[in-house]
Amino acid sequence: MKPTVLIYDTTLRDGAQAEDLNFSVEDKIRVARKLDEFGVHYIEGGWPGSNPRDVEFFREMRRVKLKRAKLAAFGSTRRARLKASEDPSLKSLATSGAPVATIFGKTWDLHVLKALKTTLNENLAMIEDSVAFLKEQMDEVIYDAEHFFDGYKANPDYAIETLLAAEAAGADCLVLCDTNGGALPHEVEEIIVRVSSIIGTPFGIHAHNDGELAVANSLAAVRRGAVMVHGTINGYGERCGNANLCAIIPDLKIKMGIDCVTDASLRRLREMSRYVDELANLPHRKWSPFVGDSAFAHKGGVHVDAVSKIPRTYEHIIPEQVGNRRRILISDLAGKSNILQKAAELGLTVKKGSPELAEILKKIKQLENEGYEFEGAEGSLELLMLRARHSYQSVFAMFDRIDYRVLTEKRKVDPHPVSEATVTVEVGGQVEHTAAWGNGPINALDKALRKVLPKYFPGRGLDTIRLLDYKVRVLTAAEGTAARVRVLIESGDGKSKWGTVGVSENVIEASWQALVDSIEYKLLRTAKKGRKA
Amino acid sequence: MKPTVLIYDTTLRDGAQAEDLNFSVEDKIRVARKLDEFGVHYIEGGWPGSNPRDVEFFREMRRVKLKRAKLAAFGSTRRARLKASEDPSLKSLATSGAPVATIFGKTWDLHVLKALKTTLNENLAMIEDSVAFLKEQMDEVIYDAEHFFDGYKANPDYAIETLLAAEAAGADCLVLCDTNGGALPHEVEEIIVRVSSIIGTPFGIHAHNDGELAVANSLAAVRRGAVMVHGTINGYGERCGNANLCAIIPDLKIKMGIDCVTDASLRRLREMSRYVDELANLPHRKWSPFVGDSAFAHKGGVHVDAVSKIPRTYEHIIPEQVGNRRRILISDLAGKSNILQKAAELGLTVKKGSPELAEILKKIKQLENEGYEFEGAEGSLELLMLRARHSYQSVFAMFDRIDYRVLTEKRKVDPHPVSEATVTVEVGGQVEHTAAWGNGPINALDKALRKVLPKYFPGRGLDTIRLLDYKVRVLTAAEGTAARVRVLIESGDGKSKWGTVGVSENVIEASWQALVDSIEYKLLRTAKKGRKA
Repeated sequence: MKPTVLIYDTTLRDGAQAEDLNFSVEDKIRVARKLDEFGVHYIEGGWPGSNPRDVEFFREMRRVKLKRAKLAAFGSTRRARLKASEDPSLKSLATSGAPVATIFGKTWDLHVLKALKTTLNENLAMIEDSVAFLKEQMDEVIYDAEHFFDGYKANPDYAIETLLAAEAAGADCLVLCDTNGGALPHEVEEIIVRVSSIIGTPFGIHAHNDGELAVANSLAAVRRGAVMVHGTINGYGERCGNANLCAIIPDLKIKMGIDCVTDASLRRLREMSRYVDELANLPHRKWSPFVGDSAFAHKGGVHVDAVSKIPRTYEHIIPEQVGNRRRILISDLAGKSNILQKAAELGLTVKKGSPELAEILKKIKQLENEGYEFEGAEGSLELLMLRARHSYQSVFAMFDRIDYRVLTEKRKVDPHPVSEATVTVEVGGQVEHTAAWGNGPINALDKALRKVLPKYFPGRGLDTIRLLDYKVRVLTAAEGTAARVRVLIESGDGKSKWGTVGVSENVIEASWQALVDSIEYKLLRTAKKGRKA
Repeated sequence: MKPTVLIYDTTLRDGAQAEDLNFSVEDKIRVARKLDEFGVHYIEGGWPGSNPRDVEFFREMRRVKLKRAKLAAFGSTRRARLKASEDPSLKSLATSGAPVATIFGKTWDLHVLKALKTTLNENLAMIEDSVAFLKEQMDEVIYDAEHFFDGYKANPDYAIETLLAAEAAGADCLVLCDTNGGALPHEVEEIIVRVSSIIGTPFGIHAHNDGELAVANSLAAVRRGAVMVHGTINGYGERCGNANLCAIIPDLKIKMGIDCVTDASLRRLREMSRYVDELANLPHRKWSPFVGDSAFAHKGGVHVDAVSKIPRTYEHIIPEQVGNRRRILISDLAGKSNILQKAAELGLTVKKGSPELAEILKKIKQLENEGYEFEGAEGSLELLMLRARHSYQSVFAMFDRIDYRVLTEKRKVDPHPVSEATVTVEVGGQVEHTAAWGNGPINALDKALRKVLPKYFPGRGLDTIRLLDYKVRVLTAAEGTAARVRVLIESGDGKSKWGTVGVSENVIEASWQALVDSIEYKLLRTAKKGRKA
């Protein structure tokens, strides 16, 4: 089946305008390969005329064979009063090696007169000349009508004229851009109905999310005949981001029945999303539709019970269609069905009606009453479930912690506070006593522990553990009594992440519990792997 | 002008279903007060029948006088084959003290038959009886038609019947819920056009974001006559979240010309958003439309140049309309007008163009670069502003802190960790050296400080200060470098509350900064009162 809508990814160009997002050339090549493998139709790689990094990217991409995606180079129409063939920016597109050029031109008379400071006629000539020049040099030319909707609202006739100029010069696709991201879906529909009655060239949509409507505007355009959708993975982009392909693709395919990527690609959507997160070094947005960790997470007991019997009662699609999965969150509403499902998720066999299950439930309730919280602390939860087994002690009790002391000090003579920890640990009958400095008390305790443990657990990757996040929350602050604090630690080893939790009136003790759980969990996982091998 | 659309906030109920979001009763009361001040029409506080925390919230709220928002208690229709007057859940609504009850009932025949395991007729009776019972007991009853759109697609006639049952019993508003979040805007419009030709009662919309369409679905419903919009601040909620009021409110007001909150409230939208972030202890989503740090941030040179001359070239609205500001990412300039506004709020006179203002701005920029955050830490902000004055030193510099040491220790023989602090303080030329035990290191430091200070500041109420909340957040966790932490402390003296902030690589030092600010702030306020008296 031929695709009905073409997916044009601009993560590497417009997406890279996001605050905090910086791709190296190497990153960009990896993302391009992954996008190709995933199955988008176009990959906009950058603006070779604007910076040396993009020039290098296109140079490197000459050696990369894409399976089916077409590589596009981005640029603007020629400068005013310059021949297209002499415009350096257009030449850089023609020599980029990419088969497709995407150039943007001005739609909005305000921009032509005040920003470009040229005439309305010269702008039309700039569009026509530039498209015509590139059509001679490249396989395909896509024309981006910048500020199309704002321009149309200000001066509809002129906006249409700019499209007709690009069409006359032979543009293969006219893309209507909501550059400022402020358009509403019904406006997009109304304007497109008018425009599509005048132009004959296939058209596309390029939306931004400033009104939190980029996905809706893209779908509205498709409903009115757009055959190309521009967007980015995870919606990364300047200001509030571009239209999010990770929502548009499943909305089109699953909900509107419009083909764009294969079913197999759709099942890799979450993988694609996480890949870009990782290369961009940005934290995963867990609440992201379709691909987020929380997208199919259920908390309330009523929901959990119903969804385990009939998924569609509380799930709008089957999570596996987009490569995601259902998660049951453990909260104070936890019932037995939550625990059983959770155990299954973690790969543990806990039998319905077993004394073990009763033990786990009792323990969770007790700990939750004390203020523990297992959402986001799956590492601690798995340990808790294992500890409820009689067999656990002998197999996994790997070290016994005895004493710790941690001192933090600041003196007037030195503005930098120092922390020093001493730890006494018993491992397999041996008592180890050591000390370490740290940037803070938790860091010092962590360092001291990891000075001792690796020699007892060689090759188990204890040195690869990193503290990724550390959160503290006060639980009760009843007057006159000491407040309990809950510490949630997220750790990672470069491959995976796990959360652990500790609760105490003392923040150091709560942190220590979470820290020890994190290390024990890592040991547990490496032990598991060992047994499987 | 009467509002055309009523804003119904469910941050405290449906929003609290978000993974990682846990509000204490105290948090909930603070959010409710802030929402009232901000100007939403309804505040859904919780589900008193489902958990003790919500029962306590409603009990506490009896003592809170809301200016104009109505408090709503949430619950479900009566159980099958039970009298409404004997249903414990309905009774808990009637006795909650809230003037408004919002109850949900089943629309979708699948849910009635398979989840509730009752008959279609009994479900209609459950809706009618429950609404009728609550109408006798409360000022207003809102009926939430759960799974309305999915139910309508499965069995339109039955879906309409459920609405008619609620209408017959006198419901004041019928809210159409897209519980699973999978509806598309054009479906919402089509279904509403049909429904609104049959029902006579005012209706509302309650959307979830599973297709990244919650805002669009809410706007579509309003275009077709909905007069109430349910949503949450920042779109917090289960799975992918609820409809985001921080986008819907400005979309309605600025773009669609529909009144809902005042212009003055709109200018406090960002403040409202950040307040909930801080109390929820969740990181700010900087790319959020309208309210995010990046929402009006410009990176590209072309954009920056154009936008500085004519803002609307690259900004869909004026950022100040929603209390946000433009940021130029290369040279970030903190808004002077924000500072002037804030100073006026705090009762300080800072003159436009004064060197004092320049000094404050410079200091804020520097501290924000280091990771300080003054939202929710107004105590520290006020101190910062005062410290920029030359006159401050002599009037308010009340004590000089010199050294501290804090030790936390746990030994195998005793499961309770102990913390001991020693503090050396100079007050008015006198050096004091003292020590104290505490439940944790911060508590020990606090106690040691307060052993010394009262004798120098008698009658200033230092003994009345209580630590109400203590939050820690990791700011950066770049590999190989130490993470900075930000500590936010909320203190109270029984009459009022104030927040202070500290930042350091060391959690003890960051806590110490916030603690000292808290005490200094208390002294400052009692000094002010003294002068006024």
